[in-house]
Amino acid sequence: MSTPSKIGSPKKISESTIHRLSLYYRALSLLEKENYDTVSSKQLAKIERLTPAQVRKDLSFFGSFGTRGLGYPVNELKQKIATILGIDRQWRVALIGIGNIGSALVSYKEFARQGFQIVKLFDNDQRKIGSNHKGIIVSDIKNLEQELSEASIEMVVLTTPPTVAQYLVDDIVNSGVKAILNFAPINLKVPEHIYLRNENMAMELEYLSFALTNNAPPRRQPSY
Amino acid sequence: MSTPSKIGSPKKISESTIHRLSLYYRALSLLEKENYDTVSSKQLAKIERLTPAQVRKDLSFFGSFGTRGLGYPVNELKQKIATILGIDRQWRVALIGIGNIGSALVSYKEFARQGFQIVKLFDNDQRKIGSNHKGIIVSDIKNLEQELSEASIEMVVLTTPPTVAQYLVDDIVNSGVKAILNFAPINLKVPEHIYLRNENMAMELEYLSFALTNNAPPRRQPSY
Repeated sequence: MSTPSKIGSPKKISESTIHRLSLYYRALSLLEKENYDTVSSKQLAKIERLTPAQVRKDLSFFGSFGTRGLGYPVNELKQKIATILGIDRQWRVALIGIGNIGSALVSYKEFARQGFQIVKLFDNDQRKIGSNHKGIIVSDIKNLEQELSEASIEMVVLTTPPTVAQYLVDDIVNSGVKAILNFAPINLKVPEHIYLRNENMAMELEYLSFALTNNAPPRRQPSY
Repeated sequence: MSTPSKIGSPKKISESTIHRLSLYYRALSLLEKENYDTVSSKQLAKIERLTPAQVRKDLSFFGSFGTRGLGYPVNELKQKIATILGIDRQWRVALIGIGNIGSALVSYKEFARQGFQIVKLFDNDQRKIGSNHKGIIVSDIKNLEQELSEASIEMVVLTTPPTVAQYLVDDIVNSGVKAILNFAPINLKVPEHIYLRNENMAMELEYLSFALTNNAPPRRQPSY
């Protein structure tokens, strides 16, 4: 992995670094809540079960930052990471599929906390359409393309059954949305210019089963 | 990353490889359902938005496997990956905290599909204790240590509020459980011999916000 020395070339940041930046952001938010002013690479490493060298390397993206012996200023570092990750602003998000997972996500505080605001809900079930979830009225999926476009939605969270998910891609793409987080267990086919992430909550359990099965050294958080 | 040539040394598999093995397993399961007998590294790469070279490198862990020109046998490869990941067996899992996310996870089919069987539920709310979720009676968290131990629980999924999560760690550890998947937004402190993974569903949205903000090339699935 190459480490650009300036903040100016975020495209060169590797995916594993982006993931670790998310982890640091989360740790810094919690430290801020606990009234910490500064944090050392050693402390951050301990929280995330990484090596201090890894933390220092990652944070070197931000140029020379932090003071030897004093560490990094918590709030300032948090803000810098937020800017890189694009979470120093609000994102307009629509959630499609108000089943078990979808309903839970509407109430999921971590989304709003990082600036992901669910402002539209969709379902195809007549009993759900028109109902109110946390102040949002569920729309009919029939009007998906038009309503996504009119509401200036930037990201879609897809929590429909797998059989429905692929069928919706055209409407989502035609609406101008460029980013999809897919919870449906399906290899979703999307045009090449669309950003797609698949969420599978069983995956984290698979790390645990791998670790237990192979007696992997538990000290460090698998950092992918 | 070093690539051990034999299946005999799973400890040396990097965390990012474990993650990709999970992705391949998922893709292979879907291909099997669609009645594919064989799959090429090129096809697998396309599904997961990786390079064919990366796929071949990862699968070289399994020694020489697959036939040039014919590809890998879907079912056999899926079984081999399952063995490595430790999901060729059933795991006894307890879920603690029957809130929005907890309730959704009780019904989450991907857990059972990969062998993670939720067999115990716990809460501290008198209105929830004794209630039935998918055939499981919710236990009182007061008896956590004893009931985890008696039920031979191997993994715990923690979906309590953050203020409660840390408080439960001692009981969980004392019961003999060695693996925790934590959904609570808290830097959980656990003894060094415990495997801990933190799940934060906002993290995947952060990849998307990073990509949209920085106009990252969308072709490949960030593969961490």
